[in-house]
Amino acid sequence: MSLEIDFEPIGRRVICARGETILDAAQRAGIMLTSICGGAGTCGRCAIRLMSGQASPPNTTEELQLGSEEVAAGWRLACQTEIQGEVRVHIPPDSLVTAQRMQTEGQTLPIDLDPAVRAFNVYLTSPTLDDLRSDAKRLRDALDSSTLAFAAPVLRRLSNDLRAFDFHATVFIRGSSVVGVRPVLSRALGLAVDIGTTKLAAYLVDLSSGETLASAGAMNPQIAYGEDVMSRIGHAIIHPGGAEQLRSAIVETLNELARDLCTQINCQPEDIVDAVVVGNTAMHHLFLGLPVKQLGQAPYVAAESAALDLPVHDLGLEIAPGAFVHMLPNIAGFVGSDHVAMLLASGLPERQGVVLGMDIGTNTEISLVAQGRHLACSAASGPAFEGAHIKYGMRAAPGAIEGVVFRGEQVLIKTVEDMPPVGLCGSGILDLVAQMRRAGMINSRGALDGASGNPRIRIGAHGGEFVVVASTENDGTEITFSRSDANEIQLAKGAIRAGVNILLQHAGVTQGDINEVIIAGAFGTYLNVQSGIDIGMFPRVDRRRYRQVGNAAGVGARMALLSKAQRERAKDLARRVEYVELTAEEGFASKFARALPFE
Amino acid sequence: MSLEIDFEPIGRRVICARGETILDAAQRAGIMLTSICGGAGTCGRCAIRLMSGQASPPNTTEELQLGSEEVAAGWRLACQTEIQGEVRVHIPPDSLVTAQRMQTEGQTLPIDLDPAVRAFNVYLTSPTLDDLRSDAKRLRDALDSSTLAFAAPVLRRLSNDLRAFDFHATVFIRGSSVVGVRPVLSRALGLAVDIGTTKLAAYLVDLSSGETLASAGAMNPQIAYGEDVMSRIGHAIIHPGGAEQLRSAIVETLNELARDLCTQINCQPEDIVDAVVVGNTAMHHLFLGLPVKQLGQAPYVAAESAALDLPVHDLGLEIAPGAFVHMLPNIAGFVGSDHVAMLLASGLPERQGVVLGMDIGTNTEISLVAQGRHLACSAASGPAFEGAHIKYGMRAAPGAIEGVVFRGEQVLIKTVEDMPPVGLCGSGILDLVAQMRRAGMINSRGALDGASGNPRIRIGAHGGEFVVVASTENDGTEITFSRSDANEIQLAKGAIRAGVNILLQHAGVTQGDINEVIIAGAFGTYLNVQSGIDIGMFPRVDRRRYRQVGNAAGVGARMALLSKAQRERAKDLARRVEYVELTAEEGFASKFARALPFE
Repeated sequence: MSLEIDFEPIGRRVICARGETILDAAQRAGIMLTSICGGAGTCGRCAIRLMSGQASPPNTTEELQLGSEEVAAGWRLACQTEIQGEVRVHIPPDSLVTAQRMQTEGQTLPIDLDPAVRAFNVYLTSPTLDDLRSDAKRLRDALDSSTLAFAAPVLRRLSNDLRAFDFHATVFIRGSSVVGVRPVLSRALGLAVDIGTTKLAAYLVDLSSGETLASAGAMNPQIAYGEDVMSRIGHAIIHPGGAEQLRSAIVETLNELARDLCTQINCQPEDIVDAVVVGNTAMHHLFLGLPVKQLGQAPYVAAESAALDLPVHDLGLEIAPGAFVHMLPNIAGFVGSDHVAMLLASGLPERQGVVLGMDIGTNTEISLVAQGRHLACSAASGPAFEGAHIKYGMRAAPGAIEGVVFRGEQVLIKTVEDMPPVGLCGSGILDLVAQMRRAGMINSRGALDGASGNPRIRIGAHGGEFVVVASTENDGTEITFSRSDANEIQLAKGAIRAGVNILLQHAGVTQGDINEVIIAGAFGTYLNVQSGIDIGMFPRVDRRRYRQVGNAAGVGARMALLSKAQRERAKDLARRVEYVELTAEEGFASKFARALPFE
Repeated sequence: MSLEIDFEPIGRRVICARGETILDAAQRAGIMLTSICGGAGTCGRCAIRLMSGQASPPNTTEELQLGSEEVAAGWRLACQTEIQGEVRVHIPPDSLVTAQRMQTEGQTLPIDLDPAVRAFNVYLTSPTLDDLRSDAKRLRDALDSSTLAFAAPVLRRLSNDLRAFDFHATVFIRGSSVVGVRPVLSRALGLAVDIGTTKLAAYLVDLSSGETLASAGAMNPQIAYGEDVMSRIGHAIIHPGGAEQLRSAIVETLNELARDLCTQINCQPEDIVDAVVVGNTAMHHLFLGLPVKQLGQAPYVAAESAALDLPVHDLGLEIAPGAFVHMLPNIAGFVGSDHVAMLLASGLPERQGVVLGMDIGTNTEISLVAQGRHLACSAASGPAFEGAHIKYGMRAAPGAIEGVVFRGEQVLIKTVEDMPPVGLCGSGILDLVAQMRRAGMINSRGALDGASGNPRIRIGAHGGEFVVVASTENDGTEITFSRSDANEIQLAKGAIRAGVNILLQHAGVTQGDINEVIIAGAFGTYLNVQSGIDIGMFPRVDRRRYRQVGNAAGVGARMALLSKAQRERAKDLARRVEYVELTAEEGFASKFARALPFE
């Protein structure tokens, strides 16, 4: 039986089936509701308000994402709400995809296409005794370019390729260099890569349409040589051949990813004629084979901070033989090109008013635009939000508790893929601490109140601990959270907040002046912003001023792939950033100490 | 006891020792007599005329080089003539080194220095917490160049190099690219290489003075895979990995040569910041790893004919990490950049009148400048002059007969290093045929006159043969020359002469119009031009119009190394050449047949 759904304020009525989600109905009708998590309920971006009609009751996911008060006021997640009768729905502007907002995979990006590599179809005649021009000259003549240059790897294939394609070919050209020669009427593909310390994300993009054709992720294989940036730098310095191990590990994995992406859309790696790679400065250096010793010691100096265009064959990347990799600029030793890509994608540097941006990770890059200045720093937030140093901590793998909400004495949890709980990932830990603070179970220094009489608080081997999941609730597996875990979170929270405070101070503004906060990165996509505000990790600013932009680095990389103007914009904005080295800040230790307590 | 020697027309009197050669006395006094062979008596370039006084009597070498009539008129070779009393010597202009003439190793070249790579000394301050610029930016700022680019191999070493040199360095720059970073006050060296099918010649040049600091030669290691160009192309096509074998063999040998040259002058291969490589088109392609299949089949097309600048790390050359190899342009499939280098060095394209130039080898490249046009072709002269297909043929190794002159019934021979004769090399064969023709022992078709009654002519297993060296004259080793040998020489001679004739015809001139003939290459240095004229291999033009310019390709490569203007000149002149493909010439077979008979 079909029902009707009424979308306001846009005034669209859509036929839908009972049991269909509001998100599915909207997408089917071409209404661009934002959905970063693809309907998993984890991004909270498809918030709508149910004005009237019958739908499924709010679930735990919605309680976690929206908060109980909002749910009580009719706010719902479109992806979680199943239609059970005629409904009327209000879509707030924030939940609609617009050109100014981040967009998701598979969609085109809101920029003018202006790629660095162009395709030209040529129909050459074969050489004869009357026409003895060299193969390269034949091509130059056809393209009417006497200065057309060929790198050795291109020239080495040119004669055989031209003959294999019967002298009818698509020639890909970057500036005045031939990138590759393919069968006639081939399309131009580009590869965008975000090298994270933990994860890699790769995107295959059609350079002529701007469309993302395929994407893939993988673990950063360098993890085998060290979990964090500093341990990898150590490996590169201490072990003979260590830097080369790290370099070739990442390059091999990128080549595999490129092959996988090509298999997905039935093309060849040689069809990839351009690439953009972003990463933090250490990942950037290790990928390029640049020395990292000076990056690991004060004053932590990059070998190179400018944007680079490097031939793929110098890097070992197996795509079109004459392709270049464009590396976006780094800002400093610990604010890399991934942050520049995030800035590019979020539009942060061009926003009006006081705008804060954060890329939360083992190092948290923070940007503040205020008073016509752009300040940036890197906070050593550590790996606690990736689950490290937390007794039951883990990455956001199936069974990880990613959301926690207390309802009276009940502890509601949401796990990744709704599997039985096995540990706590970053967003779950953040929620847990916030809920415990709100319930008065933990003080500002992270001590658990053993005298609260709460049956979930007990004295364990290392002091007070909170039982998140009792063994009786979960086939014998217990999950607890202790003061020492809380203290790890304090270190992370304190580092981020101290960085924010110092930037605000440098800019001469206060948290009350902040107009907008942009949170980027994988963890930043899934965390509950309100929890971050509640514990004092984020500035106390209206939750609606926060914008979670997902993997903005990957989007920024794709924008640079599609547009030379965006590459120039990246250079420009990186140049304008004033880097603030926190460890060189006067009184840094006490500023950090003051940022440690939970609010 | 000291004697005095009087040089005219320059009017210099020089004290010399009894027994000293005129060449030694002249060189000691700074009189620049031309001496390509270094006093071995083989180049014939130090011809002088003894006007009066006592000296050693003319020897066989002089008879061979100068001819009996000239010797009778007082002409001598300065290198062979020992002073035995006060003498008066006339030096003809042709025997003096001038800026317009080819010059020898160790001397500067007559061009304006304008190298592609420049040295800059920089004295940087080290990074501090107050000065966190990346190493690359620090260098850019010091050189006041925001666009300075670093190739990956340079960037990979930059941070460590700068620290090793305490941030005081010499930076070598080509255009806007950093070629290398060396300790402060390092000098700029360049490498020039001529890749011959048989031999390699390499020169180490000071880019700031233009001086050739060291030179070295080696066999082309590709000989192991085939003696001539076609057999190497065959190897590259037929054997999997064959092309790569040929490429890496030559690259390894060049790296060894570069190391040897550096050892000679106590420097490092990293001090070599620029390189120019020339060779025939096949050597060019095999060195660069370009495909040669299309070069080995009609219509014999090069993959690339334009000048190239390729990063050394793409080629495997181990010099400064950011250096480029400049490859002079090729003209056609069988007229390569070595011929362009010869044109550059000899100045042939800019000469007045009708000028013919020849690089004699397995393929003989021929240029003709006439009536404002520049025509070139390649004649398949074959390896006979390298001793191949000749029963007692050999290369110009010790014991090879390099000169022959008949004095009545006597056969005077000159061997390499005056060792007992073991065979005939090219120049000896040429002399032999010319002397036999002059003595009427051989007819125009190469048949030996068995009825001449000459005791040195006999009937061997394969017809008539001439006994050059009887076993009784030479501890049992006999050296003979047969009609079939003479026919091989006819093929070579015919190919060259047909090429010359066709070019003359294309230009609408005759051999009588020729003003100058330039003979280049190793064989061209040592051959007796008169013998070449006598048998009709060379045009019948006054011997004094001939100029033997030695390894002009090596000189041209060095000129291009020292001057960007010379590189442009090479591009220009290569562009202006009209290539004539002999095999596409109407009636080529009959023109070739008409050129076969000895004159």
